[in-house]
Amino acid sequence: MTDRLVRPQTAENRWDGVEEMRYKAEGSAPFRDITRQVLFQDPALACELRYFEMQPGGYSTLERHEHAHAVMIQRGAGRVLVGNRVFDVSEHDLVHVPALTWHQFRAPDDAPFGFLCMVNAERDRPQLPTAADLDALLRDPAVAAFIRT
Amino acid sequence: MTDRLVRPQTAENRWDGVEEMRYKAEGSAPFRDITRQVLFQDPALACELRYFEMQPGGYSTLERHEHAHAVMIQRGAGRVLVGNRVFDVSEHDLVHVPALTWHQFRAPDDAPFGFLCMVNAERDRPQLPTAADLDALLRDPAVAAFIRT
Repeated sequence: MTDRLVRPQTAENRWDGVEEMRYKAEGSAPFRDITRQVLFQDPALACELRYFEMQPGGYSTLERHEHAHAVMIQRGAGRVLVGNRVFDVSEHDLVHVPALTWHQFRAPDDAPFGFLCMVNAERDRPQLPTAADLDALLRDPAVAAFIRT
Repeated sequence: MTDRLVRPQTAENRWDGVEEMRYKAEGSAPFRDITRQVLFQDPALACELRYFEMQPGGYSTLERHEHAHAVMIQRGAGRVLVGNRVFDVSEHDLVHVPALTWHQFRAPDDAPFGFLCMVNAERDRPQLPTAADLDALLRDPAVAAFIRT
């Protein structure tokens, strides 16, 4: 336990004793060039803190769920859809994804993009958009131009 | 609500819509030159995410509590006591403070020092060391040289 009290950063946003994992199981949902690292996951903590990083051109899954996300951009700049709005975000900006709100993060084409994400340890599984959900999202030209499915 | 989905960083580790607050009420406990900003506090989230920043020479209160801390250093470098060990930490290093473990953060004398701290939203109040606790801590020369009370 003692040797885990401090886990130094070993390279930019990589940590001693933290495994770089697949974002999700391949084929489970649409995403591209994104990894996941779980920084804190502890029975004594009611939330987890994760770090997600995308390569240039990468994106997270377009999804929603009952649980909320509390996000701080940690590396570079990118864009995020929250509900029906697309925001430009950069290092240290804060993003709040409320319950049951469609969201997707996208890296730019020429640089990596990373962010911290705090979530409840007990949470529901993400929902993917149905055909009807997608139809509704695509009605907004800004949203239609942004989302990747 | 919509205008709070994204809160940009407005200056280094200062955010639009986030108030820079006193660390604690003056006189409630020993500390020096430290501020607190609550980045996420939401009924939908079981934890809060805060940012603490110290001026050169600043320090947090030497304390312990039942709840755990999940910390990521966010600005500069400093030192931290966890239990009976003093660690040098710098940007993006991860610090885990287990339950009922004495801890104190200290900035260097020549630069500010800041860190993110995730805690359970429902948590117990910090305990200050009794005279007997302090006697025990001061028996270790490295700890005795480090702590500020």
